[in-house]
Amino acid sequence: MRRGTEEIPGYSYGLAEVARSPVSVEQLAELKVSAGFTEEDERYLRLAGQVLGDQVEQVVHHWRNDIIASIPSLARHSRTPEGEAIPAYLERSNARFCQWILDTCLRPYDQDWINYQQEIGLRHTSLKKNEVDGVRSSPYVPMRDVIAFTAVMNKTIKPYLTSKGNSADEVEKMHTAWCKSIQIQMALWVGPYADTKQAPKEW
Amino acid sequence: MRRGTEEIPGYSYGLAEVARSPVSVEQLAELKVSAGFTEEDERYLRLAGQVLGDQVEQVVHHWRNDIIASIPSLARHSRTPEGEAIPAYLERSNARFCQWILDTCLRPYDQDWINYQQEIGLRHTSLKKNEVDGVRSSPYVPMRDVIAFTAVMNKTIKPYLTSKGNSADEVEKMHTAWCKSIQIQMALWVGPYADTKQAPKEW
Repeated sequence: MRRGTEEIPGYSYGLAEVARSPVSVEQLAELKVSAGFTEEDERYLRLAGQVLGDQVEQVVHHWRNDIIASIPSLARHSRTPEGEAIPAYLERSNARFCQWILDTCLRPYDQDWINYQQEIGLRHTSLKKNEVDGVRSSPYVPMRDVIAFTAVMNKTIKPYLTSKGNSADEVEKMHTAWCKSIQIQMALWVGPYADTKQAPKEW
Repeated sequence: MRRGTEEIPGYSYGLAEVARSPVSVEQLAELKVSAGFTEEDERYLRLAGQVLGDQVEQVVHHWRNDIIASIPSLARHSRTPEGEAIPAYLERSNARFCQWILDTCLRPYDQDWINYQQEIGLRHTSLKKNEVDGVRSSPYVPMRDVIAFTAVMNKTIKPYLTSKGNSADEVEKMHTAWCKSIQIQMALWVGPYADTKQAPKEW
């Protein structure tokens, strides 16, 4: 874990203000089995964390500036409703995006981790998007946009996994572990979208 | 496409009885962009369809019998509430599962395809699960189980893609195209779960 996570704006991992997820450690264990996520995957995520550690800013820059910025239907979620850039919003959420890569690789998947997945999900819905950053932007990110974009993250992370000279076998195993983790996280993120009172109509 | 899809029980692809999805071809185009899905991916899916064509029964057997059957939280969705096997249900849904692999690779992603993704999503929710097969089984498949299990499908499809002697580069591109398509399909399947009147509480 990088030092200084308390300096990341709006990053509340493990803090008391993060609500408890309705998903238990036992239910996560079931999800891991459904995704074929094993202790080997945990080990290769740790290795991925080492490999990616000093590249996370580069990865997030790649995703945000080279890809998302050029896709209007995604870029709007970090702009004002009038389409103006909000540099402070990007700076804050990019810092969290970087830390999310590290958390994916290096955190134990315990109740704190589950709770923060719930928080991440909520921050993409109309219940909490924009709130922690005090910005005026799109009211929510449709779940289908989140799911679709993970395909890009999974594909584009691979060159960064290969860049430290690990063997092809190691890279493949790191990548597989990464992809499984993303599916498990998405399975958790979808939960907050299910709030029948306040879920956005568009998914 | 294999001949005889009209003989697959409960398979209604392209038929008038399939409702129109709220998602348009234009919205699918946006989703493709979000997932980084390009014409190259379309070409490699066609190749994957050729490679997988005579292996689909084997793949589905692998998924159902070697994996799902041994995971109680997934296996229950094709059993009675009391946990008994329903061989006729498996036989019918396995035939559709095989065809789904082919449809993923070989069908044009047009309005018919979008509509059938909506139908597939619905058939996993309490709105339509069990209906087409007239069986008594779990009332729905939580979306999170669907999302988690796709990680297994994405990983285990790869050896089948390599089995016909294609180059490592071709296999990689077929696999990438497959994974992107699965994310796009999931993004569409999640839609029916959003019905605020009848969505299951558990995701």
